[in-house]
Amino acid sequence: MSLQHWLGPIKDSGWQMYELSERLYPICRSITGDGVRETLKILQEYMPLEIEEIPSGTKVFDWTVPKEWNVREAWVKDAAGRKIIDFAKHNLHLLNYSIPIHQKMSLADLRPHLHSLPDQPTLIPYRTSYYQENWGFCLTHQQYEKLEEGTYEVFIDSSLTEGHLTFGTLLIPGKTEEEILLSTHICHPSLANDNLSGISILTQLAQFIQQGDRHYSYRFLFLPGTIGAISWLALHQDHLARIKGGWVTALLGDDGAFTYKRSRRGDTEIDRITEYVLATTGHAHQVIDFIPYGYDERQFCSPGINLAMGNLGRTPFGQFPEYHTSADNMDFIRPENLQQSFQLFCQMVAVLEGNRTYQNLAPYCEPQLGKRGLYSAIGGDNDRKERQMAMLWLLNLSDGQNSLLEIAQRSGLSFALLAEMADVLMEHQLLDLYPSSI
Amino acid sequence: MSLQHWLGPIKDSGWQMYELSERLYPICRSITGDGVRETLKILQEYMPLEIEEIPSGTKVFDWTVPKEWNVREAWVKDAAGRKIIDFAKHNLHLLNYSIPIHQKMSLADLRPHLHSLPDQPTLIPYRTSYYQENWGFCLTHQQYEKLEEGTYEVFIDSSLTEGHLTFGTLLIPGKTEEEILLSTHICHPSLANDNLSGISILTQLAQFIQQGDRHYSYRFLFLPGTIGAISWLALHQDHLARIKGGWVTALLGDDGAFTYKRSRRGDTEIDRITEYVLATTGHAHQVIDFIPYGYDERQFCSPGINLAMGNLGRTPFGQFPEYHTSADNMDFIRPENLQQSFQLFCQMVAVLEGNRTYQNLAPYCEPQLGKRGLYSAIGGDNDRKERQMAMLWLLNLSDGQNSLLEIAQRSGLSFALLAEMADVLMEHQLLDLYPSSI
Amino acid sequence: MSLQHWLGPIKDSGWQMYELSERLYPICRSITGDGVRETLKILQEYMPLEIEEIPSGTKVFDWTVPKEWNVREAWVKDAAGRKIIDFAKHNLHLLNYSIPIHQKMSLADLRPHLHSLPDQPTLIPYRTSYYQENWGFCLTHQQYEKLEEGTYEVFIDSSLTEGHLTFGTLLIPGKTEEEILLSTHICHPSLANDNLSGISILTQLAQFIQQGDRHYSYRFLFLPGTIGAISWLALHQDHLARIKGGWVTALLGDDGAFTYKRSRRGDTEIDRITEYVLATTGHAHQVIDFIPYGYDERQFCSPGINLAMGNLGRTPFGQFPEYHTSADNMDFIRPENLQQSFQLFCQMVAVLEGNRTYQNLAPYCEPQLGKRGLYSAIGGDNDRKERQMAMLWLLNLSDGQNSLLEIAQRSGLSFALLAEMADVLMEHQLLDLYPSSI
Repeated sequence: MSLQHWLGPIKDSGWQMYELSERLYPICRSITGDGVRETLKILQEYMPLEIEEIPSGTKVFDWTVPKEWNVREAWVKDAAGRKIIDFAKHNLHLLNYSIPIHQKMSLADLRPHLHSLPDQPTLIPYRTSYYQENWGFCLTHQQYEKLEEGTYEVFIDSSLTEGHLTFGTLLIPGKTEEEILLSTHICHPSLANDNLSGISILTQLAQFIQQGDRHYSYRFLFLPGTIGAISWLALHQDHLARIKGGWVTALLGDDGAFTYKRSRRGDTEIDRITEYVLATTGHAHQVIDFIPYGYDERQFCSPGINLAMGNLGRTPFGQFPEYHTSADNMDFIRPENLQQSFQLFCQMVAVLEGNRTYQNLAPYCEPQLGKRGLYSAIGGDNDRKERQMAMLWLLNLSDGQNSLLEIAQRSGLSFALLAEMADVLMEHQLLDLYPSSI
Repeated sequence: MSLQHWLGPIKDSGWQMYELSERLYPICRSITGDGVRETLKILQEYMPLEIEEIPSGTKVFDWTVPKEWNVREAWVKDAAGRKIIDFAKHNLHLLNYSIPIHQKMSLADLRPHLHSLPDQPTLIPYRTSYYQENWGFCLTHQQYEKLEEGTYEVFIDSSLTEGHLTFGTLLIPGKTEEEILLSTHICHPSLANDNLSGISILTQLAQFIQQGDRHYSYRFLFLPGTIGAISWLALHQDHLARIKGGWVTALLGDDGAFTYKRSRRGDTEIDRITEYVLATTGHAHQVIDFIPYGYDERQFCSPGINLAMGNLGRTPFGQFPEYHTSADNMDFIRPENLQQSFQLFCQMVAVLEGNRTYQNLAPYCEPQLGKRGLYSAIGGDNDRKERQMAMLWLLNLSDGQNSLLEIAQRSGLSFALLAEMADVLMEHQLLDLYPSSI
Repeated sequence: MSLQHWLGPIKDSGWQMYELSERLYPICRSITGDGVRETLKILQEYMPLEIEEIPSGTKVFDWTVPKEWNVREAWVKDAAGRKIIDFAKHNLHLLNYSIPIHQKMSLADLRPHLHSLPDQPTLIPYRTSYYQENWGFCLTHQQYEKLEEGTYEVFIDSSLTEGHLTFGTLLIPGKTEEEILLSTHICHPSLANDNLSGISILTQLAQFIQQGDRHYSYRFLFLPGTIGAISWLALHQDHLARIKGGWVTALLGDDGAFTYKRSRRGDTEIDRITEYVLATTGHAHQVIDFIPYGYDERQFCSPGINLAMGNLGRTPFGQFPEYHTSADNMDFIRPENLQQSFQLFCQMVAVLEGNRTYQNLAPYCEPQLGKRGLYSAIGGDNDRKERQMAMLWLLNLSDGQNSLLEIAQRSGLSFALLAEMADVLMEHQLLDLYPSSI
């Protein structure tokens, strides 16, 4: 195991992730369309992402891939011909997946198509209508309240046509074909935390993982929410048996504490590693049980799929006031937060990579460490004592039943020290990988 | 499932139960004899109870059905010929199962046969001597202390002869032959809480259950304590395999909090339902582990029988000062308390009836609820959101491993809402009963 | 079962144990040599201990029995020829296992061979160098600081030669060949708590156990630390299957609370008995999980051996300031403490001996205790009630799944009462030993 890469210091790339988010921010994404294609093409500059497309109308489990949506222009003009709402100024102004329309109408007829936030009067809300044909505009409540009676001209130059669902995948092969999934949604337009933060961090993480010797294979999924995950799962059913588990992630750039939502199974190695790393790094965090609502863990953890996929983020969706509004902008996320989130993923991957199970090759009584120079003779400093304790714990619990993680949790010693001392004991032929762990 | 009956509102019949108790109060019951027969005949006015009789001398496991006891008259006269203790005034005055006697004796010879309560000097105690031939009188300690030296005439016109043990049973058949037992003791004379309250409530509950479509069959047992339960079990050994479990109950009319004593097995569906209903209805209550002392759960939970029978009551026996005294009279129990206890049983039966296990028929990812009109399009009120969450939980956990109760406990949603939404999902062919739950 | 011996009062032998410790205190013990032999010979005066010897060079698992060490004289003289450090005055003055030397040297050359305690300047430390050839002296830091420049004469008349490893064992056979191990280390020179206290208590306990009728066989091991346990285990591998478990013990004479360190398996009958006795006797105590460091439980609980051996002592090693210094002398231990520790072992052995599993021979409903005179007729005092409850618990839980200990823990009744009532129920053919418990 090359400990240096996985357990060593992690370089600061907070600003790089921030800048990638900034670059992606203006693009109008949706669950289909050119905004997704443009986003994935930019990501290809950072990693050899494969872009896959599925035609509209394809059956994926209980769902059907919808028509592709694209939009060029959209506005509302008042009686005086002034554009009072304009998609060109902010792509949240348009109800995502709005059908085309060009029509004059009274304010009374327009009102049902307008969405604003009376409690947050300066913010534009984010609204979608993917699976029910509709059109609409979103605006600040301040704007809304200023609207006067009169005739309005509504224009939406969008198309909803047979096309494709687009997503990006990257497989980084490891020593085994057993796969770790890292999945995030890419369907949101100009919203920074939700989810340019997740996209940027997984992009950085893919680079980090590519640089190390890997035990596992890693598959990164950049998917439109819900339909993207369902499509990928429907097209890869034969593949699921080789998936060990992984993380759905999003909302990684805000100032809030981390939130880990356990997988449906609840006590998988993924769950235990995440909780261990959160606990031992000392970050403020909460751990909650699985609920069948949220991001794409809903699909990965549906009863027929039931993968060991948890969800890791910071403040949960809906629990910060900027959520799904124009205030989730580039001022809301911070490079330091992105970096801290990124490091957490690096540490989880490091524990995952290092979490082998060993067998003691001299299990009858303690082996004589002294004759191998592994034991301090008279006294000894604290550091040496910790290393000795690490060896004793490794020897005592390496009966094939305890992985390094379990030994770390039971002993209270650091995972990195145990991994290092396991290597030392292997060099002295006192420990070997347990067959199932090779 | 006909939810309306089981999960709907329950009519107030507190006064009816109180009046039945009042009617039964004066009768002198014992473990055998005409008092029991008369009691059961009155109950037959309310439900088609079967009255069964077992001859004295019948072997029932380690026991033998005792002789039948009846009493016509019993008194003690003082030297002046005045009746100073008279069974005709209160049937607790006579030691239950007293053998016949007619004799004059000194106060010194009489004293060992007198029972009073020095700490509760105005109350008559309730005493029995079923299995050891004896005679005696119970009186208030105030009376006892006024007794003067002199010759007393003691007269007990009772009979202890070959006869029968009598008890009442009612089977209300359901869709399956699997049976729920509801058992209470009927051997106490004029004691209201112990146990006319239990008798009245089970009578009302039998009527309630008869009115609904039943999944389970329900068997009501009105039994003389100990020997009645032992006899019934001994005569129905072949029958035990079809008993799912149930409740022994008594002491349901006082003002105290509920007490649930778990079955010997401790974590059966009966236990979980009882604890769930107690917790979610918000009644003050305590839950205690099984102990091999108390009412007939001692027999139902003996190691060779080991049925899933808990005991539900209010203040436990021996823990209220009126217990087994003349103060356990019709003033001690209240219609409101009877009604609340009755409702609790109705709710437990409702959860039992509704506690099916389902399987998700579209278990791969979430089914598309929207295309079935089951999902709100834009936004939605709280009620609609709860219904959506109920559907998501039902779909996610319906893998044959979780019953509705487990889904209710894990989700925090109400059992009734989940049951209702399970019906909706079944109508849409998204859920079906799991084979073992049909 | 002869309850009188195991569960009855235990005679006070605190002073006897103290006097044995006092007698053994001056002897210079090590892991080999005549000090060990002399110690074991003294113990033979108290019990029929077998003394066994293994030649130097014998391979025992990963270890080799070392050369035998003996010492006759050892001192350091200053330039004026005065003995400033003298083994004859205190055997801790010599680094245990020092090789022979006779040489003059400067203070600078001597210093690396001197050991003192700057934080405890009036105490002589205890130091060893068994597996790395070395020589040295231990002295108080006050002495150390007074040393002046000049030439010192160092003389150690020791021998490190082919010889033997010596240890003592005693097997007290019981009804079954299943063995309980009681092991303590005998390699420390003049240190009272560590471990003349352990030696004295196991000596007394052997006498106590010999006097009773035993279900189990008991094997006492008086072993040099580490190499003694490894040697014994290596030579008795075929024997391990018949060992039920037991206790490693030491440090039993100080004033501190008891400390029980669980076996590696953690929930064996040995662990449960120890924790039960500690909890119910009410002694101040702590229970800690197994760690692979400490006394010979390290060997008994190595993964290939994995016996149910816990460690029981008072204040743990290294956690009292007198530990491994000249202050661990006969003033540090007290007869009362020895007696209390001894009693605790007697009680644990009593529970172990009495912890049978029974089967109820009348498991269908309760047997009729009354007809056997086992049930009070009318009322009854508290003592009688406790005895009745004990019978009811025994009958209810004796289904082969619960031992007396489990019944005691679940019922809250005393183990001794339950054991007594189990005998009563056996006499009445209501209970019998469960086959696996005979």
